[in-house]
Amino acid sequence: MILPQGFRSAGLACGIKEKKTTFDLSLFVSDVPCAGAGVFTKNQVCGAPVKVSRERVPGDSLRAVVINSGNANACTGERGIEDAKWMTGLVADGLAVAAEDVLVCSTGIIGRFLPRTPIEAGIPAAIEQLGADSEAFLNAARGMMTTDTVPKQAMRVVNVGGQEIRVSGVAKGAAMIAPNMATMLSVIMTDAPLDAAQTDQMLRHAVDRSFNCVSVEGHTSTSDTVFLLANGASGAEALSEAELGQLQTALDEVAMELGQAIIRDAEGADHFVTIEVSGAAERADAMEIARTIANDALVKTAIAGSDPNWGRIVSATGRTSVKLNERDIVLHINGTLIYTEGRPAEYNEQAISDGIQQNRDVLIQIQLPFGEETVVFWTSDLTQEYVRLNSEYTT
Amino acid sequence: MILPQGFRSAGLACGIKEKKTTFDLSLFVSDVPCAGAGVFTKNQVCGAPVKVSRERVPGDSLRAVVINSGNANACTGERGIEDAKWMTGLVADGLAVAAEDVLVCSTGIIGRFLPRTPIEAGIPAAIEQLGADSEAFLNAARGMMTTDTVPKQAMRVVNVGGQEIRVSGVAKGAAMIAPNMATMLSVIMTDAPLDAAQTDQMLRHAVDRSFNCVSVEGHTSTSDTVFLLANGASGAEALSEAELGQLQTALDEVAMELGQAIIRDAEGADHFVTIEVSGAAERADAMEIARTIANDALVKTAIAGSDPNWGRIVSATGRTSVKLNERDIVLHINGTLIYTEGRPAEYNEQAISDGIQQNRDVLIQIQLPFGEETVVFWTSDLTQEYVRLNSEYTT
Repeated sequence: MILPQGFRSAGLACGIKEKKTTFDLSLFVSDVPCAGAGVFTKNQVCGAPVKVSRERVPGDSLRAVVINSGNANACTGERGIEDAKWMTGLVADGLAVAAEDVLVCSTGIIGRFLPRTPIEAGIPAAIEQLGADSEAFLNAARGMMTTDTVPKQAMRVVNVGGQEIRVSGVAKGAAMIAPNMATMLSVIMTDAPLDAAQTDQMLRHAVDRSFNCVSVEGHTSTSDTVFLLANGASGAEALSEAELGQLQTALDEVAMELGQAIIRDAEGADHFVTIEVSGAAERADAMEIARTIANDALVKTAIAGSDPNWGRIVSATGRTSVKLNERDIVLHINGTLIYTEGRPAEYNEQAISDGIQQNRDVLIQIQLPFGEETVVFWTSDLTQEYVRLNSEYTT
Repeated sequence: MILPQGFRSAGLACGIKEKKTTFDLSLFVSDVPCAGAGVFTKNQVCGAPVKVSRERVPGDSLRAVVINSGNANACTGERGIEDAKWMTGLVADGLAVAAEDVLVCSTGIIGRFLPRTPIEAGIPAAIEQLGADSEAFLNAARGMMTTDTVPKQAMRVVNVGGQEIRVSGVAKGAAMIAPNMATMLSVIMTDAPLDAAQTDQMLRHAVDRSFNCVSVEGHTSTSDTVFLLANGASGAEALSEAELGQLQTALDEVAMELGQAIIRDAEGADHFVTIEVSGAAERADAMEIARTIANDALVKTAIAGSDPNWGRIVSATGRTSVKLNERDIVLHINGTLIYTEGRPAEYNEQAISDGIQQNRDVLIQIQLPFGEETVVFWTSDLTQEYVRLNSEYTT
């Protein structure tokens, strides 16, 4: 997995985390000023880095993203804001760019001030180590991990007008056992030629179909952030409408792969659940139903128990604000018709249950008769192990 | 615990449930026509009895409520509606009243047709056994139980103008291990003289402060129903404004006691959690915050782990639609200041954690600076046992 042209990255252990060999700092740099956009948590209680970065995007002269793990710099007041700005200043000094062109994320424990000493040594070391090879990219994916068990990277290549354009991204998040919250961070880079408004629009499109379609327990963190940077270093000319469409597809796929990787890395989960809601009049309706099913503790425990419990799924659908009655819902689980015309269908319960038990992936499909809108959503099941992991963590 | 004047009840095992000695039928009868109201699930996928009863309240000539457990008669189409009406007809025939004056509830497995044979024999037997003593009242509380481990009754007496007015209620619900959903049913009776509009208004007031303030996993069932019946048999004259206020307080208390009993009966839960949100500008704001905290899996697992995890609570508050920032929130847990002015307070973590571990009751208080509205909400924690119980049940 490699970076797009004109990007370099680094990741290392600078000593923020207790175990001094665990990576806790990542840096992504564009060799030339680039366009970029960000999407942030909607939680009103948000970390200082969110407040600082939010002011700097969309932008067209961005140069770097610096990320530390081990401390979220959230609920830290004015001093937290100063610390976040100070981090971007350190990066800017080392790269000889403006601090306003550096973005910042922090993830980890909340309510504690950022430890400046390790970061003060770590940032110059990261600049020193910047590289364009796959190892440098992997190191950067590792520096942002908290409870993740695997680094998360994804990449697509699009060929337009004889030029190869790359879209490469990293993410962190393993929602089940997040120390305080399920913080999700992602940096996606491309060497396509885009302006700031284009990055903003394309990033929102991608996030709406990826990171906004994954949920473990429905709790948005104080620090969730996704960035898109585009530096034009591929050498491709300005893209046509059709080419932009190809690039959007690649970007959507990278974001989806990263979002799904977070759910797949959910420790304590036994099943990876895909929920497809089709036939809605509005996309928002399909989204509300998918999200309600995904966050329903009774649905999630049923799946953990390999139980094709149509009652819980149909009832979760009914308790949304989408106007419908029980005859409007057609439910398939793993491709088998389970519920239609207001009644359970004829099916082999044991076979469905065995199918859930024996496979990590489960597909729940809800068909409605109202329109053409479809949403695909991903979640995990709710197991005893999830509860054990989340109960045993203490601040 | 006794019924109000002029009410009789019965409960017995008629054979709907697999184990033939387990109670599964309850009957409540007023000796004279009475005023009554109902509050029903907002779930659009709702049981046939909800559809039938909803048409019959508020009313001023009601005579009886019949309830069966073991079968919810939900997702049963037209035949389900016929079955529910047929049940009320059987009661009406036995009591020589009109079927339209009989209300009906069913709770249990969904998607299966009601078994008519046991009910056909059970209803005349229940009519035969109707009694006004405490045993008859307890039997009726038992006949509506599903996964409840204890029958739930509550009673208050108000003295007005030299007359004693009783408010007596029963409820069922043990949300954690509900077979399909957390169905909650309650019947509250009073011998106060009220008209239909008064019962409707007073019931809504009480439900808003009781059953609407309890949640285990945020899933409203297909069958949730609360009825209030008032037959005037106390002999009290029409009540003054002040006397109506006294009666409302008694009714609120009965409903709160029943609602809390449902949370306390939540199998698999280790803690009974009271969430108090004060200082909100609107009651709806306080309610949204309380409900969001109550349904947050990360907050609930933290409590199961005896962890005073202010980060999860403050973040859950921030992800509501109530406009606020982290400096607006003051958090106490079990009376100790945990978070204020955007930062964690100084407190003894071990002492707080020990306090949670050693007591079943936990009090979470959120103070806001916006107004005078307060909501008190009750929930349980999220334990491994909850997941085990909900996973292992299969349809």
